[in-house]
Amino acid sequence: MQRALIRELETIVGRPNLLTAPEELSCYSYDGTGRIFLPEAVALPGSAAEVAAILRLANRHGFAVVPRGAGTGMTGGSLPTAGGLVLATARMNRILEIDPENMIAVVEPGVVTGDLQAALKKHNLMYPPDPASLKFCTIGGNAAECAGGPSAVKYGVTRDYVIGLEIVLPTGEIMRTGVRTEKGVVGYDLIRLFVGSEGTLGIFTRLVLRTLPLPERKETYLLIFDSLARATGLVAGILAAGIRPCTLEYMDRTAIRVVRDHIPLPLPPETAALLLVEIDGSGVEVAGQQDLLVRYLREGDIAFRHAADDRERAEIWLARRSVSPAVFSLKPDKISEDVVVPRSRIPDLVRFTEELAADLDLTILTFGHAGDGNIHVNIMLDRTDKREAEQGAAARAALFQFVVDLGGSLSGEHGIGLTKAEFVPLEIDANALKVMKNIKRMLDPNNILNPGKIFPGG
Amino acid sequence: MQRALIRELETIVGRPNLLTAPEELSCYSYDGTGRIFLPEAVALPGSAAEVAAILRLANRHGFAVVPRGAGTGMTGGSLPTAGGLVLATARMNRILEIDPENMIAVVEPGVVTGDLQAALKKHNLMYPPDPASLKFCTIGGNAAECAGGPSAVKYGVTRDYVIGLEIVLPTGEIMRTGVRTEKGVVGYDLIRLFVGSEGTLGIFTRLVLRTLPLPERKETYLLIFDSLARATGLVAGILAAGIRPCTLEYMDRTAIRVVRDHIPLPLPPETAALLLVEIDGSGVEVAGQQDLLVRYLREGDIAFRHAADDRERAEIWLARRSVSPAVFSLKPDKISEDVVVPRSRIPDLVRFTEELAADLDLTILTFGHAGDGNIHVNIMLDRTDKREAEQGAAARAALFQFVVDLGGSLSGEHGIGLTKAEFVPLEIDANALKVMKNIKRMLDPNNILNPGKIFPGG
Repeated sequence: MQRALIRELETIVGRPNLLTAPEELSCYSYDGTGRIFLPEAVALPGSAAEVAAILRLANRHGFAVVPRGAGTGMTGGSLPTAGGLVLATARMNRILEIDPENMIAVVEPGVVTGDLQAALKKHNLMYPPDPASLKFCTIGGNAAECAGGPSAVKYGVTRDYVIGLEIVLPTGEIMRTGVRTEKGVVGYDLIRLFVGSEGTLGIFTRLVLRTLPLPERKETYLLIFDSLARATGLVAGILAAGIRPCTLEYMDRTAIRVVRDHIPLPLPPETAALLLVEIDGSGVEVAGQQDLLVRYLREGDIAFRHAADDRERAEIWLARRSVSPAVFSLKPDKISEDVVVPRSRIPDLVRFTEELAADLDLTILTFGHAGDGNIHVNIMLDRTDKREAEQGAAARAALFQFVVDLGGSLSGEHGIGLTKAEFVPLEIDANALKVMKNIKRMLDPNNILNPGKIFPGG
Repeated sequence: MQRALIRELETIVGRPNLLTAPEELSCYSYDGTGRIFLPEAVALPGSAAEVAAILRLANRHGFAVVPRGAGTGMTGGSLPTAGGLVLATARMNRILEIDPENMIAVVEPGVVTGDLQAALKKHNLMYPPDPASLKFCTIGGNAAECAGGPSAVKYGVTRDYVIGLEIVLPTGEIMRTGVRTEKGVVGYDLIRLFVGSEGTLGIFTRLVLRTLPLPERKETYLLIFDSLARATGLVAGILAAGIRPCTLEYMDRTAIRVVRDHIPLPLPPETAALLLVEIDGSGVEVAGQQDLLVRYLREGDIAFRHAADDRERAEIWLARRSVSPAVFSLKPDKISEDVVVPRSRIPDLVRFTEELAADLDLTILTFGHAGDGNIHVNIMLDRTDKREAEQGAAARAALFQFVVDLGGSLSGEHGIGLTKAEFVPLEIDANALKVMKNIKRMLDPNNILNPGKIFPGG
């Protein structure tokens, strides 16, 4: 970037909010994928007007603009692969309004998800989406990637909570769309087009969110199995029995083993799988659901532990949350994919990954959101080992093909970003892909906003 | 339409499925608005390929194609205002699949909503959207208009249940988009762009729908008020108390009066408003919610009746459902609008309509979905009376402006269609409208699919 351009950017956002020093740039060069791409500059705008001015400048001069929340994404959505400018939303971090009567919140994109949840709690309200990174990640990033989390099985994902948006379009116009009400069917539903568009169609500068009454109570159960097939096979049954868990997570034998190396889990040695089931709601609702669940488990002769208090609940969650970091005790690298399959096909997916691991001589573990079929498949490897790197890539390609053949999806909550773009045509119909590309071209004729993401071949 | 064109259409759909006789055409010339526009021909295609062939022909010859389900729409979406061809989905009416394990249904667009609900019930499943016309209206029409109904307060509207679509684009390409799973964030969310697009962006030929477990039990309460303000003011309180009704409807004094002329309702003579509250779920959940509700009502000293059995429940619903037809005892014509306001502003909306009625010397009654702020405002008039017709139009314009000023929406479930198009710019931002028009132009360059709908000035 020319010095003159840097000066124009400084004029827009103010000198302290335009970063160019190498040590500053490196802070905005990575995300959850572990890949690194250095931007040429980082701008921290403070308003929609500043965002608009930056985008108009980018169109005039043809530099890429890559929006960034907290950089916790898992597929490279916020990486400046084409250089250019990272537009970080960190300064636009105000909760503008909490309206308890209508149960809505209005926020700027840089608000940390966990901070919003804490602020809502004081009003007895809940914003359900709960990605693992909720202490760091931002609402803007969540909306860009359509983030989920364990609670999605009951409460849905980010797109189910965004009802209104202020967006700066790639060409610099500020657009407001959506409602502040529960319903609204006026014109095309642009909200859902922009939510999940991974920062390629516009930059959110204000979000209107639905919230729900905070549940009074939550109860946590750990179900213990000596067979993985039995655990995953139970998922559809639990839901069909009228149980509406707010968490329905599972861990396979390898996931349990790596966690046990770090945390003492009081489990029988032959444990082959765990299901983590939580129920929330009003006191009476929870009691009713507990009754249903316990009856169901006893009838099926399934061993379980009920967390007696917050300490025991925290212990169970520590085990679940430790899987992702603990896997590195197996191998230095992992390929982590958040594929989705129809709930009833989870056993098929698990069987497939086991066969794949045996065939390719790799360690593959699976865990995650069994309740909605969103399974985290971790292929463990050492990238410096050429054979393992090749087998890992082969396993990944085979996994994606299998998932699509099952009627599933390449991603439930991480998005496509950079890392899955080449596989998109496996799942997306050629005509649908054409429509998506045409929408991108229509809104961003100079391809300046987050270029090279989502679409195969950029 | 030239005879040669008719013959080409006959070749596509088969002779018995192409209607041109005046008495046949007239069956496809109206909808719930009472307006009449005769099409030049009606085609009843049997497959996506036939729909595609029709649209390709329309592009070549420049005739309008207007998709039609059952013609129960309230805003003219299915009216052939520009003549041309009505494309009726009546023959594409198969339920293709019900998958109880994954709780999805795959249907053709012409399936009647109530028929699908009945078929699902046998599998202990529920498809929640319940527009008043559910015994006649079709899933395709519901998806085109994003239909709602009383259950939306708990379960949401049509867009919350459509997860996959096969769509014939205006230029004749068949596109598949969406998933068969609970989650999926691959590429742009085109589903939500097409659902609610009122037949202007494509014709649905197959829909994948989420369903829910059928609730075990339902309980019905009628709350009786001597003040409308007290009734509407209670709505936000009921929800804040943690009660999650599946119905939260209200009727004002005039609505009650017109119904009482036809149905004997055992209510105190000073009744000024009713709230109809229903609770559903598992046995234990319902018991818990009933407990909360009854405690809340007793604390607030609110009179109520609990339907002891199905007969009493049917009686209460008959009263609610009779409002729409019974209003014609007041005046021969009505302007019926399904505006939405933030829940907490319902009392303001009601006060405004009362003042408007007094100022303009009109009868205006309000009733509807109080739980989600979607209020049906009925302005009663005699269109042959010039003064009333003018005052009615003035009342409507004033109502829309007031609703938008309150942060509300022109339509919660009926759509824009023909009748509200001129008011769209009140609510929709100029930049958003530009994006919507560009999407329409991109997908339908020859403007052959349902032209003249949604956008002001066609």
